[in-house]
Amino acid sequence: MFRFPAPMRAALVAAEAAAAQGEVPVGAVVTLGDRIVGTGGNAPRARHDPTAHAEIVAIREAAAVLGRDRLEGCDLWVTLEPCAMCAGAISHARLARLYYGAADPKGGAVEHGPRFFTQPTCHHRPEVYGGIGEAEAAALLRGFFAGRR
Amino acid sequence: MFRFPAPMRAALVAAEAAAAQGEVPVGAVVTLGDRIVGTGGNAPRARHDPTAHAEIVAIREAAAVLGRDRLEGCDLWVTLEPCAMCAGAISHARLARLYYGAADPKGGAVEHGPRFFTQPTCHHRPEVYGGIGEAEAAALLRGFFAGRR
Repeated sequence: MFRFPAPMRAALVAAEAAAAQGEVPVGAVVTLGDRIVGTGGNAPRARHDPTAHAEIVAIREAAAVLGRDRLEGCDLWVTLEPCAMCAGAISHARLARLYYGAADPKGGAVEHGPRFFTQPTCHHRPEVYGGIGEAEAAALLRGFFAGRR
Repeated sequence: MFRFPAPMRAALVAAEAAAAQGEVPVGAVVTLGDRIVGTGGNAPRARHDPTAHAEIVAIREAAAVLGRDRLEGCDLWVTLEPCAMCAGAISHARLARLYYGAADPKGGAVEHGPRFFTQPTCHHRPEVYGGIGEAEAAALLRGFFAGRR
């Protein structure tokens, strides 16, 4: 029935919640072992915060919950390829693994554009796994943008 | 007496305050016309937040103060060349101008590494002015790292 791991299902639920608020539907969770320690939906408009991408919201929540500024041993699951801002935050947070859904040729910074984790100025590179829950994540985004036309 | 504009002096004060808290001394302010609408010192350790670079703190404060997620018409002043995370945030925030002090060959993303604002996946480029208050900003950083040895 489920073709991808539970954390990515949780990230997709967060993306759906973002869409219901009129935000571009992207969702993310941070896990430590089997436990979700941070959840975020894309929310710049609602929060009046241009940095409130799903990844940033989830990372900030996880760091607050764990009481430390580095998330060593934690993983990030996000429905869309991270942008440069979020890739930088993932590196600063020392996240161990990054799992993402749909690729983002227009704004992604992992396999597109700056390919941040390959830069010599990137000082921590997570293990990266793309395409997990890709079809579902992409369908959410397509539905959202089709609805706005 | 003063060799650089008032907002960069305020950013240097914020950097000094960060150093006093044991954080890497970087400071930033956001201005709208002559008014400072956001101030930030680098604070990841104190805030338990890996995203709490000076620029992010100042941008989030300015967006909250102005009640909007885009800082059109605003400028950012920061003592150090922004990293990829912060360059991405500057772009998302639609800041009009970026003024920075010291260059950062190890972690900068404006004139080093990804050179984010030159990427086709960057959808908003501020006007960029570097080297403002450079000597003072670099001296603060040198003093901080010398003191930790």
